[in-house]
Parts: sequence; C-alpha cells; structure tokens
Amino acid sequence: MLLEQINQPEDLKRLSIEQLEQLAAEIRQFLVEKLSVTGGHLSSNLGVVELTIALHYLFNSPYDKFIFDVGHQSYVHKMFTGRKDKFDTLRKYKGMCGFVKRSESEHDVWEAGHSSTSLSAAMGMAMARDLKGEHNRVIAIIGDGALTGGMALEAMNHIGHEKKNLMVILNDNEMSIAPNVGALHNYLGKIRSDRNYVKVKEEVEYLIKKIPAIGGTLAKTLEKLKDSLKYMVVSGVLFEELGFTYLGPVDGNNLPLMLETLKQAEKVEGPVMVHVLTLKGKGYTPAEKDSHTWHGASPYKIESGQMLKAVGPPMYTEVFSGAIMELASQDERIVAVTPAMPGGSGLMKFAEKFPKRMIDVGIAEQHAATLCAALASEGMKPVYAVYSTFLQRAYDQVVHDICRANLNVIFAIDRAGFVGPDGETHQGVYDIAYLRSIPNMVLMMPKDENELRHMMKTAVDYNDGPIAVRYPRIAGLGVTMEETMRPIPIGTWEVLRAGDSAVVLAVGPMIQVAMEAAEQLAKEGIQLRVVNARFIKPMDEAMLLQLAKENLPIITLEEGSQAGGFGGGVLEFYSSHSLHGLQIKIVGIPDYFVEHGSVPEQRKEVGLTAERVVTEVHALMPRKRQHA
Amino acid sequence: MLLEQINQPEDLKRLSIEQLEQLAAEIRQFLVEKLSVTGGHLSSNLGVVELTIALHYLFNSPYDKFIFDVGHQSYVHKMFTGRKDKFDTLRKYKGMCGFVKRSESEHDVWEAGHSSTSLSAAMGMAMARDLKGEHNRVIAIIGDGALTGGMALEAMNHIGHEKKNLMVILNDNEMSIAPNVGALHNYLGKIRSDRNYVKVKEEVEYLIKKIPAIGGTLAKTLEKLKDSLKYMVVSGVLFEELGFTYLGPVDGNNLPLMLETLKQAEKVEGPVMVHVLTLKGKGYTPAEKDSHTWHGASPYKIESGQMLKAVGPPMYTEVFSGAIMELASQDERIVAVTPAMPGGSGLMKFAEKFPKRMIDVGIAEQHAATLCAALASEGMKPVYAVYSTFLQRAYDQVVHDICRANLNVIFAIDRAGFVGPDGETHQGVYDIAYLRSIPNMVLMMPKDENELRHMMKTAVDYNDGPIAVRYPRIAGLGVTMEETMRPIPIGTWEVLRAGDSAVVLAVGPMIQVAMEAAEQLAKEGIQLRVVNARFIKPMDEAMLLQLAKENLPIITLEEGSQAGGFGGGVLEFYSSHSLHGLQIKIVGIPDYFVEHGSVPEQRKEVGLTAERVVTEVHALMPRKRQHA
Repeated sequence: MLLEQINQPEDLKRLSIEQLEQLAAEIRQFLVEKLSVTGGHLSSNLGVVELTIALHYLFNSPYDKFIFDVGHQSYVHKMFTGRKDKFDTLRKYKGMCGFVKRSESEHDVWEAGHSSTSLSAAMGMAMARDLKGEHNRVIAIIGDGALTGGMALEAMNHIGHEKKNLMVILNDNEMSIAPNVGALHNYLGKIRSDRNYVKVKEEVEYLIKKIPAIGGTLAKTLEKLKDSLKYMVVSGVLFEELGFTYLGPVDGNNLPLMLETLKQAEKVEGPVMVHVLTLKGKGYTPAEKDSHTWHGASPYKIESGQMLKAVGPPMYTEVFSGAIMELASQDERIVAVTPAMPGGSGLMKFAEKFPKRMIDVGIAEQHAATLCAALASEGMKPVYAVYSTFLQRAYDQVVHDICRANLNVIFAIDRAGFVGPDGETHQGVYDIAYLRSIPNMVLMMPKDENELRHMMKTAVDYNDGPIAVRYPRIAGLGVTMEETMRPIPIGTWEVLRAGDSAVVLAVGPMIQVAMEAAEQLAKEGIQLRVVNARFIKPMDEAMLLQLAKENLPIITLEEGSQAGGFGGGVLEFYSSHSLHGLQIKIVGIPDYFVEHGSVPEQRKEVGLTAERVVTEVHALMPRKRQHA
Repeated sequence: MLLEQINQPEDLKRLSIEQLEQLAAEIRQFLVEKLSVTGGHLSSNLGVVELTIALHYLFNSPYDKFIFDVGHQSYVHKMFTGRKDKFDTLRKYKGMCGFVKRSESEHDVWEAGHSSTSLSAAMGMAMARDLKGEHNRVIAIIGDGALTGGMALEAMNHIGHEKKNLMVILNDNEMSIAPNVGALHNYLGKIRSDRNYVKVKEEVEYLIKKIPAIGGTLAKTLEKLKDSLKYMVVSGVLFEELGFTYLGPVDGNNLPLMLETLKQAEKVEGPVMVHVLTLKGKGYTPAEKDSHTWHGASPYKIESGQMLKAVGPPMYTEVFSGAIMELASQDERIVAVTPAMPGGSGLMKFAEKFPKRMIDVGIAEQHAATLCAALASEGMKPVYAVYSTFLQRAYDQVVHDICRANLNVIFAIDRAGFVGPDGETHQGVYDIAYLRSIPNMVLMMPKDENELRHMMKTAVDYNDGPIAVRYPRIAGLGVTMEETMRPIPIGTWEVLRAGDSAVVLAVGPMIQVAMEAAEQLAKEGIQLRVVNARFIKPMDEAMLLQLAKENLPIITLEEGSQAGGFGGGVLEFYSSHSLHGLQIKIVGIPDYFVEHGSVPEQRKEVGLTAERVVTEVHALMPRKRQHA
C-alpha cells in the first residue's frame, strides 16, 4: 500500500506519476471504507482525488494557500496533511471536523461550511501577500454550483478588475447538492459539449494563412477578424470578459492532464481560471449513479451501496413536505422557492406534482428572498424553504424587502437548532435572535410533527405579513397525525402540563426536555407547569400577564442563542410592562460556537437537558417549596 | 408650461415628440428648483428624465410594472404619477418619501432603498404574471453600479435560465455613488468605447457575401463562422452568454432614440437587456461636473451651485476619517475596505494617502466582509467601513467567516441609529440586535467624537477577534479633541454623572438625552446617575453586579431596536446571574419601521427624549423619593 507511506505533502512528491495513479485508487478505497462506517460527504471527495493529488504534488502547502470552497471536499487534503488516522472520528463529537478547520492543521488556511466564500478568501489572501511583499500561490477550488452564489460573483468582479495573481479551479461536476440551475450552468454546459469551438479555431487559422491569396480589402478585414478571434475560439469568453485567463475544460480525473494543465496555469500572469470536469462519486458505482443521494451519505454497506436508515417517526422535513403538498393542492397561489436545496428541504415530490410552482434558484439565498417578496407583492403565497443557517445569507432581504414592505412571505426554516455532525458552520441557532428583532415578523416553532402541519396551515391562512415556521433537523416524536390541518390563533401558547410550583416556557424540541424535568420534579412534589411557547413572536401576552399575577418562578428554554433569544424577549416584555420583581431564568445556548457531534451531545454540552431544568427550578424555588 | 398639464401618465401620451422634449427641459428646471430648497438625489434624477418619459409614454403603469432599483431615481416617475405638488415635502417628516413607496401610489409597485434588488423583483413579478396567466410587461431599471451587487448577479443567472419575458434597462452612467470598480465596469467601458465592434460586423458581412467567390472548404468554414458571428459583433456577449438579448448601447438622453429602442426591445421574446448611457446631472452644469458631490445634494444656490453647509462640530464620519489616517500611518497592517462608499465613509483622503491599502470592492457587501476575513487571516488589520443598514447584507459573512473563525476584523459602522431623511430603508437600528448575539463580537459606541478616536485605537490594538465601533450620522458634540489616542479597556463603562436615586445606562448619542433628563430631575431632588455604556458587548459586568448590590432602579437607553437590543442584554445578564427582583426599564426603538424625517423628529416619535427618561424615572422611583 502506497497510502501507508503518505502522511505529509512531501511524501507525495517522491512518487512517480504511475505511483500517484495507484495512490488515487487506494485513496478511493480508503474513503469508501471509512465513510461506510461514519457517513460523510463521499461523492464530492471521490471526485477530487486526482485534483487534490495534483495540488499537493505541484505546490507547497501551507506556504501556497489552498482554499476549498465549502470545505467538505477536503477529505483527501486531510489525508495528505497528517489526519489519515482521524477518519474513524469524522464528524463525531470531539473528532475530526467534516470541513476544513484552521485549528486542525496549518494546512487548513481557510474554513467554510457555507458555499461561495473561496473567491473572496483567495482575493484577500492575494492582496495580503502583495502588501507584505510575499510570493506564495493562492489557489481557490470552487464548485460550479457555488459559483452562482452572489458573493462569488461579487468576488469575480473584483478579482477580474484588480488582476492579482491567483488561481481559481472551477470544479465542474454538474451538481452542487441539487442539479444546478441558472444561466451560468447552461453556459458551462455549452462549453463542455460544444466541441465546435475548437474546430472553428482550427479552420479560422487556416483561413488566415490564406489571407495573402485572398488579397485586397478582405485581407484587412481578416486582420481585424484576427483580433476578434478569441470571441470564437476561447470557450471561456464569459470569464475572459471578466478579466480571467481561462483554461479548459480539462478532465479532472485524468492525473497527467491535470498536472500538465496546472503547470500551464501557474505561468499565467493575473487571475487564471482552470475549468476542471470531475465525476462525483468517481470509482464507487453506487455514488457515480446517484450523486444526489451520495452527497451527504449515511453509513452504508459497501457492496450493495445500501444506506443504513434509522427507522422511526418521520423527520420534520418529511412532514413539512407532506403539508406543503396538501396545501398547494388547495391553493394555487402557493409556490415553493428553494436555493438549491430541493432534496434537503423536502420539495422533490412538490417539484414533481407542481413543476410550474417549484422555483429552484440555485445557490442564491438573497435572490430567493427578494423573489419571494415580489411574488407576494403580486398576490402569490411564496414558501421560502431554507435552512436556518443559510437564511443568514438573506438577512438584509428579509429586513428590507420582506418585513419592511410587510409582504405575505412564508418561511419554512429547516435545521433550526443544533444540526449534529455538520457542526458549527451549520448550527441553526441564531435565527430566533436575528428574526425576532425585525418588525412585522411572526415566528413559530412546533412542539411536534403534528403541530408543524397546523403551523403550515396557519402560515398559509395568515395575510398580514411575513410568517415563519422553524423546525429541527431531527425525527418527530411519533405522535398521532391529525388529518385536517387547522390554523392556530396567532400569538397563543398552550399549557401542556399543569403545575403551580413553577413554569417553564419551552420552545419546540425543548418541550420534551421540560416534560422530562417535570416528571422528575413531580417525584419530589414540585409541580412544574409546561407551556408550549409555540409563537416566539408575537408572544402570548395574556398568558405572560397572567403568569405575572401568579408570581410563579419562570424558566425559559430554547435551543437557540441565549443572547437576544426568546428568553430575552420574555424579559423585555415584563420590563416594558413595568412588571419588575419576577423570578425569571433564561436558558439557551451560551455565547460561543458549538462544534460537531450528535444533537444530544451538543445539547448536553450546553446544558439543554432535563437535569439542568431541574437544577434551575430548585434554584428558583423558595426553600419551603423544595422541601414540601 | 407643459408640465402644468401633466399629472398622470395618460397626460404624457397626448404630447408630440417635440413637446416631450420640451417637457424634459421643464422637468429639469422643476427638479433643480425644488431640490435647491429640500435637497435630495438630484444628479441621478436629472439623468433619467428622457428614460422615464419614454417608459410612461410607451407603456401603461401600473398595469405594466416599473421597478426602480434603489428608488431614489424615481422623482420624475413621482411627478408623472400625481405627486408633483408634494416636492416641497420631499424627504421631510410625514412628507413625500425620497424612494419609491408602495403606500404613496399604485404606480409604485416595488420599493427599495438598498441597491441591486430590482432584478429579483422583476423576476418574481414576471413569474407571478405567468402563473396567473396575465400579460403585463415587467421592466427593471438598474444602474451599472447596482449590477455588481451579488443578488443582482444571482438574479441574472436565474433570469437567463428561465427565459421569462422581462426587460432590464441597464442605466449606465459610469457612477453609482462612488466611481464604479470591477471587471463588469471595465467590460461596460469597453462596450462604450470600442466602436470597432460595429465595424467588424459590417466587414464580416461583406466577407460572407464573398463566400461563393472564395469557394471550396473555405466556404464551409465561413458558414460555421457565421454561427459564431455574434461573438464578434454583439457588444453584449457577456449578457448574451447569460441568456439575455442585448440591445445597445444607446444614448439615454436622446428621447427619439430611447423611444425607438424601447419599442424594439418590447418585441424581443425572453429577457432583454437594454444598455442605456445617461449623463448624471444632465442639464445642470454644477451637477454634470461633479456627479459625486451632487449624488445626494444638500440645499444649494441654483446659480452658483453652492451647497449650504451646516457649520459646527465635525461629523462622526470626519472624525473616523482622521483617526484611521493617523492609525494607518503608524501601522502598515491597516487596510480600509469599502463597498462602494469611499466618500460617504470618509475614506477619500485615506485613498489618496494609502492607495495600495484602500480597497473599494464596488457594491458588494458580502465579498467585502469575507475579503476582510481573509486579510485578517494573513495578519493584516482590515477596517471594514460600512453603513449599519448595508452591513445587513453581510450578516452571514460576519457570522460564518469572521466571528466563527474569530478573526481580527475591525468594523467601522457608520450611520448607526436614526439616519434622518433617507428613512426606513436606511435606518441603522438593527445592528445592536443582530451583532450582539454573535459569539466573539465586541461592539462599542462612543459618547462623543473624541471617544470615537479612542475606540478606533482600541480596535486596532485588540487582537482577540472581531471588534466593531458604531457611530451615528450626525455631528459630534464639539468637545475638545485629545491629540493622543488611547485604548479603552475592553468591557468597561464609565460613570459620567454621579447620582444615587436611579441610574441610566445609555449608549452613544443617548447619553446626551440622559444628561438632559438628569439636569431636569436634579431640580426635583432626584439624582440620576448617568453611565456611558460604551461597550454594548461585552458589558461591564463588575459595574452591573455593583448596581445590583445598590439595588437602584435602572433605565437602559439606546437608539436601536428594543427587541434584542442592549437593554435586553442587561436583562439577560441579571437573569443568567440569578439576580432577580431588580427594577429595570428598557427604552429603545419600538417594534415598527420608522419613516423619514429629521433625526430629532424620529427620536421624538419613538420617545427617545429627556422627557421620556424623566417619566420613566418617576415611574420607577418609590413614591417617597419622588417627593423627597
């Protein structure tokens, strides 16, 4: 096994091309085996084996900066930089991160879980290099899907203008997470397929040689034509117009070709774009055949490619999927909008049934939000299905285009709260804080998957402005599903468990935590009232006023940033109503970024547990009650 | 005067072309006169007179949708839609908004103060139209500067793919607010200047006619060439590649030409881009000569073009400008980054003195933020100078790329708090709420312009992650300026006025309000302690604990969203320290969008006044103290 000898980039440089090709095969075997146990981003990493070998073989990391856009395509890079033995802990609590991570290695110079940041990062590093008078290479590796993100386009515009030396490797696998959409994608497709370009080039060159024979004014015309030749013969005219030198397209799974092309690219002055075609899932047949399913793989059986799936109640995403289908059948105004996440957001069936009302805009969260605003302004009912962490990209559009204009946009915010193995870049723990402070926004979270259906109905029936439902990346509770969806009165909470010792105002999955705590407390004679605070905004003011009258100790419990969160909202309510002197303890996620692991591990780390609630109740209760 | 007869779009349609041209002159005179009194966005509106006439003459608003990107170029549109007599109240409290505004007119179908939203809006309206089976036109009018905003590029990518019928008028005046930068701008410049394109086209057509004479394989080659011709002859190849039909460039101040071009554009199937060249400030010499200064004009003398400037203490922006220059002279790591606001952000002198360390990325807030992250990762000290309202566009990049990675990026957040006449789209009132909940962020606001200098020094000296200074769009207090800048210990507040009756924790300009209230209260024997809560995050925990011991009534006072704001942070601190029972009243901006007017009017409307503080102190004080 060659792979055994490879621990640092230097080890690669000793190998022959043939050995490197053998190594590529060994790497694929390693990844397929390791990920069959841990799960992870298999197919994208199988696609970039040769590319990553070529980078580390030709250049000198970390002196030369490799910037992986969305660091989940960095597994091979991790193998070459001392982390081969960490793959058993991939994406596990306290284990190796599934993305590039600066704290893991000096070779990880940029880290990102959100897409489209690598060109800005490359430009910043190139500018810093030049200001410091240094000479290292800066190389961004970006997928074709990520290229359509607005910030990547902003960066291209800047890079093409400034003409810094930097290399962009456009890793074109015709697939981000979902199949790519957009004019840029069409354009890349044309480059890939249209071999005519090359043909025309050859023939025009022949024509030019004939100029003397043609003679006269025609010769002059053809001279001018020559200047314009690049418009015919260069595939990447669009990139050339934006100031890049374009090379490609080249087969990115052909190692000798990759090495040669990158050597050539290195000689280019100014920004160079190398257009590389790779096959997602390369070398593992199940992943080659269905790169969508294999993008983020669960553990699987290697031979059959069968993924091990948890059995149990449906995921919230699935329940959303069913609810939106049902509502859309009854209401033609409903359109679904997704920024390149039709699968993850549960919209595949919707797309089949309502193809005209399914709008996938590609990786373009900002555009998606404002598109929703415009659809709503014309009487449609857009449902913006998006992960909490990616909605961050559209914060301004939510404020400025949707809430300020008070338009009827529905937000289906998936992956709210802890997201488990994707870790800190993907935690959906800020949306309560950042949405709650925007005027006109209504924000809900269901206690279970059945209530999610009612909340979708609530959202569709609501006609007074934007309304959002957030739900977690976990399975539901397995509750009985009611057939008929009914709207929930806006701003109302419900008492799920009676009690007059103390009250916990709990949001979403935290209700189960509160219920467990209530069970434990009941054993010591403490009756904890559990409230489903299903409207984060507006809150149930009548109930809050009633609680103040009762003067019960209050605990708020949410799986979101404690700073600026729901608990803060409760405190603010009482303060602004001059109801001082209440005993209120807020419990949320403390002020740091929580890393990857399982959701229960993440909750335990920050103290979102029944034990914590019990402790807080004890602390709040007058001594006599504790011993009642 | 023809203008007198024009109140609705129908009135235009009765005029001859000659009359329309006379009307254009009258409109310019009207705007120059009116804005000499009120101030406003003069130069961009002078540039689009013919364009707006052509739109209303040819098409039927509001059935046809005109979508102005950044609605400050909508003054002529406002004149044609029943609002000519409102220009005396332009941008004044309760007067006519300076931007397009849906509540003002049915002709205002889209409203925006932030740039680059119009293409998404147009796409949404076109999709809604097609879903509803309607046939109205959708026309976006976007400046060349706004086109570089990431969301506009995201929208172009989507539009070019979907091929909906919609028209984009690219209003190219070579100037957004600052001179444009970026590869797209270079590209447009090439189109404008390179008349060769047209020449080549003619000559190639001639060549093709000669094909029979040339004969043989050459004929075949030329046939293929013909297919590729558009790459030579169409100026807008970049737009064509993205799926648009491109028309232009055309002189947008030539009315007959505009009418003809728009008629031609209307016949195009699918998305069409009309590239229009207009002259900012057209028809008013001072504005033509200096479109930068005249972008947002103060009241001026018409003959001389002399703007009336307020005399008094320097604006905070100017003080920032001086401080950053001084700091940059001492520290080569400092670079300034601006998204197209070198003037507004006070960086013009910096750009002159440190051209290599001045980075203007164009309208690209997201890219700017991540660029800063990368610069910081390589040891530079980037200062991201940005308005509070525009930083919203980079929220995700602040979370994901800067704070999560804990990089030493300095934010100079201008226009924090109320911004006056720009109104609700530009209010800088959410940044406290959205930044405070992000881990690792330090957030400061100075009590006066002298403290701003110390805060800039504090920021430059700080090496533990991101740090932000927010300051208002107003003049300083005229305090004595200390020559030497010194760092302020992180997380410390200061008592500005002693008192033991109650305490007000005030942020930035609210300190003056608190001081006034303290003066008034002193007359009745109430001693209000005034604290400069200069660190919004982290707070002065020692002082907060001390206040809890003293058990004084506390008022928090901030010019920011009350939901999730600084006051909420104070409440959260006490709750998480289980310090219950304190009397704390939070005062901030209530939960709605505050419209245009002067800053004092806006403050008065929401109760950020000394009188309010007095009332709140009275309410909090035990009766005996009130009558002490």
